[in-house]
Amino acid sequence: MDGQGTMSRELIDVHAHVVPDVFPGAPQGCTCWPRLAHGEAGRGTVCMGDKPFRELDARSWDYRARLASMDEEGVSMQVLSPMPELLSYWMDTRDALELARHVNGVLGELIVAGAGRFEGLGMVPLQDPALAARELTRLRDDGFRGVEVGSNINGLLPGDTRFDEFFAEAGRLGMALFVHALHPVGAERLGATPDLVPFAAFPLDTALAAASLIRAGTLERYPRLRIGFSHGGGALVSLVPRLQRGWELSGGFGGTSREAPASHARRFYYDSLVYDAAWLRHLMSAFAPGQFFAGTDYPYAIEQRGLRAFLDAAAAGADEPVYAATARRFLGLDAGHT
Amino acid sequence: MDGQGTMSRELIDVHAHVVPDVFPGAPQGCTCWPRLAHGEAGRGTVCMGDKPFRELDARSWDYRARLASMDEEGVSMQVLSPMPELLSYWMDTRDALELARHVNGVLGELIVAGAGRFEGLGMVPLQDPALAARELTRLRDDGFRGVEVGSNINGLLPGDTRFDEFFAEAGRLGMALFVHALHPVGAERLGATPDLVPFAAFPLDTALAAASLIRAGTLERYPRLRIGFSHGGGALVSLVPRLQRGWELSGGFGGTSREAPASHARRFYYDSLVYDAAWLRHLMSAFAPGQFFAGTDYPYAIEQRGLRAFLDAAAAGADEPVYAATARRFLGLDAGHT
Repeated sequence: MDGQGTMSRELIDVHAHVVPDVFPGAPQGCTCWPRLAHGEAGRGTVCMGDKPFRELDARSWDYRARLASMDEEGVSMQVLSPMPELLSYWMDTRDALELARHVNGVLGELIVAGAGRFEGLGMVPLQDPALAARELTRLRDDGFRGVEVGSNINGLLPGDTRFDEFFAEAGRLGMALFVHALHPVGAERLGATPDLVPFAAFPLDTALAAASLIRAGTLERYPRLRIGFSHGGGALVSLVPRLQRGWELSGGFGGTSREAPASHARRFYYDSLVYDAAWLRHLMSAFAPGQFFAGTDYPYAIEQRGLRAFLDAAAAGADEPVYAATARRFLGLDAGHT
Repeated sequence: MDGQGTMSRELIDVHAHVVPDVFPGAPQGCTCWPRLAHGEAGRGTVCMGDKPFRELDARSWDYRARLASMDEEGVSMQVLSPMPELLSYWMDTRDALELARHVNGVLGELIVAGAGRFEGLGMVPLQDPALAARELTRLRDDGFRGVEVGSNINGLLPGDTRFDEFFAEAGRLGMALFVHALHPVGAERLGATPDLVPFAAFPLDTALAAASLIRAGTLERYPRLRIGFSHGGGALVSLVPRLQRGWELSGGFGGTSREAPASHARRFYYDSLVYDAAWLRHLMSAFAPGQFFAGTDYPYAIEQRGLRAFLDAAAAGADEPVYAATARRFLGLDAGHT
């Protein structure tokens, strides 16, 4: 980094997903193993077992298509993470580990092929927190900057004490955690209006995940931990004043948290994926200054296109750290290890 | 109303709950019928069946204690509504109707006793939407300004088409609907941290309720309907930009909604119960100007004390409609009927 001039040009997209175009055969008895059904013109459908899940094109797996998009959008670097549905917390642990290693391997190949244009957030089988913690060393040694984590793990909130050893190890290794909405709690009740799952329940679940981490005092116990939230933290900003009131009324949630919820919220990281520049400006100035990094949800329909113009409209100036500096800090890119 | 001078003095608290001190005997077979177990010094415990639910004092049922609080806090008028747990959507319909008529009767007596200092929002058994719609006429004839509605009805979101006839009738009669968080969707997964239910899941469920009404286009179909949300709309403000993006991508949610989500949000009403004056100022200026009314959650622990000072800190000036004018419009207080 050589100061503001470089930072104003550098643009890092921390929220960009990958689906491999090839998967190994399904383990015996696994009915939700993913595969890609190839279609015409480089398109394909990713299926979970027999169920079609999402239509995709080559941008999901082909690094050249991805680099072309990045050049078009003026994005210097993408931080690659699995399509969240691949996180597979609902699989048998052994199957989930096999899938994680395959997906992480594909991410690793893309990172090499990108020759400096990609970094990676891998996946770990959090249904077994001890195993997930052990996998972090392997990922760190393979050059990953952190891992993508679901907003709940089979309905358990991340603040549950069962995940403490995972958070301790992530903090110790300096691995960033990017929390992404996944199978929102209560989504089964949205059957009649399934579009409310991504449009409404995703940001709500992200907020509940963050609230559970605040309530558990996770950042106080593991102060080196760096936790980022997708979708601008979802609805967290509107929970914090009430959490603050609850924290005051309950003696720090019964003693789990000495620091105020608003202080926790200012130590979390957030992506810029909120679709409204005025709203992002409010969040970046009043909610968590310096803690927002760019993120687009590439390459899905709900992606933020025109990222640079969107950030320009939201930012106070070209030296606003949302373009790249916060991403570098979140990912530990300037910390030396690779 | 005689202009800003009066409005700056008048202060209406639209979010204030009542629990009767006496209940009729439980109907046969009903295991969750409420009763008040009287304790010492005018205190008591409201129980649902055998289960203690909340410790209360006389402010919940005694109009003199209530008027004394109001005088102390400078509140001109309270709009009385049942403690939400009394809404009893989970009861047999006939039992719920009996309870609703009892609670509404007690509210009616308090309103008479208050001699102009109280208005009322009653309760109806929404587990039977047709019956609930019919009850609205009785309530209107008894002087109620509207009803309190849960954020979900046994897990069904209020945007579900099953509630259309209820919304149609509320719009026709000019009865205001005050949506209050109740048994949040997914709360069963917060067992290890039950304090996250009121502190986090309440505002999330309120937002999901509002999102479901936006998605269903309810205000477009029943344009005379006035719907207010407790807790400042909960997390709705942080959902709207993403709902907006979803609305654009999905052709108005598949055609249910012609008006943009942000436009719906500006037509809803909200109470001021967000605990942070700067946050309330943001909501009142950027989210839904003119649509916020005062609300405190009287007389519970999480109540906003010092309401007038809180509003003074949030409001741009004494003519800000949050003190009384929006409440009057929401409740139809200036519309003539009583």
